[in-house]
Amino acid sequence: MSTRTTFDTRLKKKETPPVMMRGYGMLEVNKTGWLEKTRPVAGPLDAIVRPTIVAPCSSDTHVSHGGSGPKKDLILGHEAVGIVEEVGELVTKFAPGDRVVVPCVTPDWLSMGTQSGKSTAHDHFMMGSFKFLSQKDGIFAEYFHVNQADANLVHMPDDVSPEAALMTVDMMSTGFHGAELAEIGYGDTVVVIGIGPVGLMAVAGAQLRGAGRIIGIGTRPNCVKIAREYGATDIVSYKEGDIVEQIKDLTGGGADKVIIAGGDAETFRQAVDMTKEMGVVSNINFFDLSHVLSMPAWSWGLGMANKDIRGGFCPGGALRIQKLLEVIRHGRLDTTKIISHKFNGFEKMEDAFDLMDKKAPDLIKPIVYMDAQ
Amino acid sequence: MSTRTTFDTRLKKKETPPVMMRGYGMLEVNKTGWLEKTRPVAGPLDAIVRPTIVAPCSSDTHVSHGGSGPKKDLILGHEAVGIVEEVGELVTKFAPGDRVVVPCVTPDWLSMGTQSGKSTAHDHFMMGSFKFLSQKDGIFAEYFHVNQADANLVHMPDDVSPEAALMTVDMMSTGFHGAELAEIGYGDTVVVIGIGPVGLMAVAGAQLRGAGRIIGIGTRPNCVKIAREYGATDIVSYKEGDIVEQIKDLTGGGADKVIIAGGDAETFRQAVDMTKEMGVVSNINFFDLSHVLSMPAWSWGLGMANKDIRGGFCPGGALRIQKLLEVIRHGRLDTTKIISHKFNGFEKMEDAFDLMDKKAPDLIKPIVYMDAQ
Amino acid sequence: MSTRTTFDTRLKKKETPPVMMRGYGMLEVNKTGWLEKTRPVAGPLDAIVRPTIVAPCSSDTHVSHGGSGPKKDLILGHEAVGIVEEVGELVTKFAPGDRVVVPCVTPDWLSMGTQSGKSTAHDHFMMGSFKFLSQKDGIFAEYFHVNQADANLVHMPDDVSPEAALMTVDMMSTGFHGAELAEIGYGDTVVVIGIGPVGLMAVAGAQLRGAGRIIGIGTRPNCVKIAREYGATDIVSYKEGDIVEQIKDLTGGGADKVIIAGGDAETFRQAVDMTKEMGVVSNINFFDLSHVLSMPAWSWGLGMANKDIRGGFCPGGALRIQKLLEVIRHGRLDTTKIISHKFNGFEKMEDAFDLMDKKAPDLIKPIVYMDAQ
Amino acid sequence: MSTRTTFDTRLKKKETPPVMMRGYGMLEVNKTGWLEKTRPVAGPLDAIVRPTIVAPCSSDTHVSHGGSGPKKDLILGHEAVGIVEEVGELVTKFAPGDRVVVPCVTPDWLSMGTQSGKSTAHDHFMMGSFKFLSQKDGIFAEYFHVNQADANLVHMPDDVSPEAALMTVDMMSTGFHGAELAEIGYGDTVVVIGIGPVGLMAVAGAQLRGAGRIIGIGTRPNCVKIAREYGATDIVSYKEGDIVEQIKDLTGGGADKVIIAGGDAETFRQAVDMTKEMGVVSNINFFDLSHVLSMPAWSWGLGMANKDIRGGFCPGGALRIQKLLEVIRHGRLDTTKIISHKFNGFEKMEDAFDLMDKKAPDLIKPIVYMDAQ
Repeated sequence: MSTRTTFDTRLKKKETPPVMMRGYGMLEVNKTGWLEKTRPVAGPLDAIVRPTIVAPCSSDTHVSHGGSGPKKDLILGHEAVGIVEEVGELVTKFAPGDRVVVPCVTPDWLSMGTQSGKSTAHDHFMMGSFKFLSQKDGIFAEYFHVNQADANLVHMPDDVSPEAALMTVDMMSTGFHGAELAEIGYGDTVVVIGIGPVGLMAVAGAQLRGAGRIIGIGTRPNCVKIAREYGATDIVSYKEGDIVEQIKDLTGGGADKVIIAGGDAETFRQAVDMTKEMGVVSNINFFDLSHVLSMPAWSWGLGMANKDIRGGFCPGGALRIQKLLEVIRHGRLDTTKIISHKFNGFEKMEDAFDLMDKKAPDLIKPIVYMDAQ
Repeated sequence: MSTRTTFDTRLKKKETPPVMMRGYGMLEVNKTGWLEKTRPVAGPLDAIVRPTIVAPCSSDTHVSHGGSGPKKDLILGHEAVGIVEEVGELVTKFAPGDRVVVPCVTPDWLSMGTQSGKSTAHDHFMMGSFKFLSQKDGIFAEYFHVNQADANLVHMPDDVSPEAALMTVDMMSTGFHGAELAEIGYGDTVVVIGIGPVGLMAVAGAQLRGAGRIIGIGTRPNCVKIAREYGATDIVSYKEGDIVEQIKDLTGGGADKVIIAGGDAETFRQAVDMTKEMGVVSNINFFDLSHVLSMPAWSWGLGMANKDIRGGFCPGGALRIQKLLEVIRHGRLDTTKIISHKFNGFEKMEDAFDLMDKKAPDLIKPIVYMDAQ
Repeated sequence: MSTRTTFDTRLKKKETPPVMMRGYGMLEVNKTGWLEKTRPVAGPLDAIVRPTIVAPCSSDTHVSHGGSGPKKDLILGHEAVGIVEEVGELVTKFAPGDRVVVPCVTPDWLSMGTQSGKSTAHDHFMMGSFKFLSQKDGIFAEYFHVNQADANLVHMPDDVSPEAALMTVDMMSTGFHGAELAEIGYGDTVVVIGIGPVGLMAVAGAQLRGAGRIIGIGTRPNCVKIAREYGATDIVSYKEGDIVEQIKDLTGGGADKVIIAGGDAETFRQAVDMTKEMGVVSNINFFDLSHVLSMPAWSWGLGMANKDIRGGFCPGGALRIQKLLEVIRHGRLDTTKIISHKFNGFEKMEDAFDLMDKKAPDLIKPIVYMDAQ
Repeated sequence: MSTRTTFDTRLKKKETPPVMMRGYGMLEVNKTGWLEKTRPVAGPLDAIVRPTIVAPCSSDTHVSHGGSGPKKDLILGHEAVGIVEEVGELVTKFAPGDRVVVPCVTPDWLSMGTQSGKSTAHDHFMMGSFKFLSQKDGIFAEYFHVNQADANLVHMPDDVSPEAALMTVDMMSTGFHGAELAEIGYGDTVVVIGIGPVGLMAVAGAQLRGAGRIIGIGTRPNCVKIAREYGATDIVSYKEGDIVEQIKDLTGGGADKVIIAGGDAETFRQAVDMTKEMGVVSNINFFDLSHVLSMPAWSWGLGMANKDIRGGFCPGGALRIQKLLEVIRHGRLDTTKIISHKFNGFEKMEDAFDLMDKKAPDLIKPIVYMDAQ
């Protein structure tokens, strides 16, 4: 298959010497810190954005430990809102100074993968639309690069706070995808396994598809509180026994839809087990390369139960984020509830990252204001 | 095509003389009043139910003016909750004394129409699953008949009020069907034309599918108030100019989805006009036999705009109502807000019916307690 | 949950002593032979059918070895066409003497499971709509019972041969379900793993959904020949190397859709492996109770590849079979190609069953004429 | 909404004087002839293609009579295969000399309209992805321009004839879209109204979705012959009575799916009339700006029949055409049957166009080889 670079500077006259900038990322596997790197330049369709607020994500820490992608000298981060600094010659909708929301998934829309209409996440190859961390530097930097700006940037609405908007670019898009894949109908009983930030968004997303009972599985008190505010009617804890049995007891045999928003290989089996015939298991959890996912044939109804198993990556591009911002603008959801920690100034990046890396007990989602407020 | 009777008493030994009962209905076209009729008996799969609360509907008044169905000597009414009085020999899930919710649409589940999975409303022929008024007496009576009780009755949940449950059997099922047919995605802009009781439920149903902006079209202050409580972000009035232009102005060119929940033939054209390319027009309004629905080819994008036009009848059967009750049980919606008038005692049926027939300005939905409370 | 008997004789006056009949089935686990049993009687909605042609199936031999269901004294068989012998009092569409096609899956249409519209196979519980073998005697008998005749029997069309019709009741319905679950689009590359009778029908079903390339995986010469006639463009053999690598080589990385129509637990992993991102794995293979289905997380794109895994049971009921008969009537498919062996007379049942049990190398599908032709 | 030019030459150094070329098109409304125009140049994402075979279409003659789009000095034509002459600096998959198939619909893939996944035809506005004729010159010329070449051009497969490939770019893509919109299930009865080249492709497309009975409505003997070869089982003629009554008689009440592939406003009403409850009307016919489409409410089941009305534009882009070429490559369809006339040399363009304009009785589809063969 032919592939294409995600940005292209061939047409750009590089008459001036490269400008250096500061970023935070992976020096080598298991070692993060500050990096001095060349400031990116925009190809003709692209933009350079200066972030104003960024949010570390467990995917960043996962990469920093060698989970996938490049193994050294990589700026981390993929969740940002910011201000356009520079645009390529073919960009028509954005100009320097524009305040923008940046999807964490920025497809090459000229690929075949996005033409199918099934997902926007797989442009030239599986998960190929995820450029940050995997194919280029991330957004924990003074500046970062966005491919195909007209299709991948969104103007910040006046009536949405930057913090709320920041939560759409990955957390809400991924969590809501869990609810979408689950094909929830009015009144369905939905289980969400894992009520971290993505799972909480899956709870909210399920509530906004008309679910009846929503059972969150988790234990941390602040997450439990928000889960209830977002629509969970029941909370089940791993600590109080086998979760499959608890769900079967509560539901009289199994749930209509089960969303996996956290866990390990064992979670996969549990999710299949607790789903009723004709139900759906919807996965938005990143399984580890080392995982082997397995289920007894009986769990899956010997392959005959019309029990679908789906799993998908965060949908990307501008339209997706525009739609999620509409949900916020019209008062359907306050995404800022999941922000548990705020850091003031880029120099606090290290603290924020460490917090995420160590998964502090009261952590849900931290954000970092690039300039001290 | 072969058809079958909706209930069958061939196996029933009629050893005792028929028992008479009182009902309220259409004496002849444009004349309603009290009727003395034979109390129905249950075929082997059926049940006889004694209503406890009933709700008149504009379909009842429509029929009373000769709109469709039988033209005389017909007990009206199709929305009821009640108590099982008698069951047929093959009924396994219900027994006399059970408190039940009764779907207004009760398919013959042995038909080919319901096997297709597309709709439950068209068992042996178009709208054939609607038995009350069309194929037999309605529920404004001391007793009424329900075909295939095991598949068409629902046990009243302990944690749902009878009034709330009563609103599911037609208003909520129909209104929510409008939202279902519209295929609403997260953040979509949805217009609901007509915010009477069904339109209000369509507003709530759209909100529970994750719509962003929801624009209700209507004028009556109490309806406007509830529309906002159910999720409408904007209200447009017919009185303030052409609704198509108002919607196009508000939305910058057209809505993603438009639900028709009231109006006449002109409304059809307006709905198509105000819908964007790739949008959906979803109709849950009963057009009149005399209507001709028309649209300039341009409104429909010359037939090329991938703008779908759908319209459907209230889904029926037990599972549908169970799912809607789940929505209520888990606190997603308070259906009782649309109940504007309560009448105490079956003898007030006439008052309730007249109120509905005259469409009093503050009327949304009346209910009648069969026994004085 | 309440369950109901699949037929009900409570209303039936049993004034005459039971009549005995002959059947062929499982005497005990691993031992088949002739049985003398009481001839069934029809409940009010049911029919008794006298088979004219029957077809043994690998599910019958599977059950005979203790695979599932009752463990002794069970008449086997679930694929039949025949003549109506007796109908219940509430049956309206069929009368004694009618020639009928009998779906192998005969749902209780008054259940909640069939009201959902997702599948007809799971009426009161998982696979509950499969009555023969599991919940009552099968059809290798002088007479057999069909629940809810009006909804589960089909009049034999004059322009379809009984042999062709017989192939619809399980083989075609199951194989085509594989193609349906795979959501094939025009031009898709489809792999069918296993080209026994069901796999061959999946090949034909894929061709009739507009697939482009169809790759059958199998080795037996007569199956390969028919696979090509049914639309397979390529044949891959297990004997010539790893099938995953062969498919990846042929397709340049993976197939759009993979249908599992045979194999064991390892086949599941292979199917996931050979499916592209955004593709579908569709299973119609009965996995064994002892199987554990597993896949490395990477095969499934770490759960992020939007690669759906589905599996379903043979759809049942009258409408399904009517639709499949339409496909045959209009010359789209000759289902009789898969009939490899014909036996003349019920007394040959034993030979036919042994042939199926031993999986003779040239066996595809045997049929048995109940009366010598 | 912001819009963008479909090609952009801002980055292109125009150091040489413009080159002139010859084209055939609309001099003014109702007057066609030869035009001398500037040869287009490629923007950075674009390509210039030299056609080798072109096909006039009734849309071209429609435009020439002032139907839509520019009103003078416009090169017509939108169906071509050819050879790449020049590519922009950012094009990676194509080079001068490549033999290519050119979709007639070439979306701007950086638009919001294509991100929704519902259709590729409406990029920045309704039908905005159709660039030829509407937004720039067409392909009846020595050279023509293609926007976003990497996403909108397809390499000509070695095993598909150029003539067969040419039939995919509009005729097959449009006709098959009719079958797609109709959501045909196995065994459905499908009517195709109009069996010109697009209708014939709709017949073939219906057969390749597993339709049972397919009824073509038309009269011309050569079309009738091909319709039968493509899968029509019945032919109904306008000349032998009302087509609605004929279809209702043939089908016992109405068809499951009706595809409109020709006709006028009256045809719309007829199509709705002849479709059963829960069926679909699928339109791929370009209605005229002057048409008013109307239906008696009863035809549409008073808006309650779950009878969907859809209509869509030819899907475009590279993936679509690749998929259709796969259908041809694997022997599912011979698209060249619809080619009724071949013209040798660009100078015969006038004859070909006149033939199309006058709709000669034996005309189905003409093609013109640009160089005499």
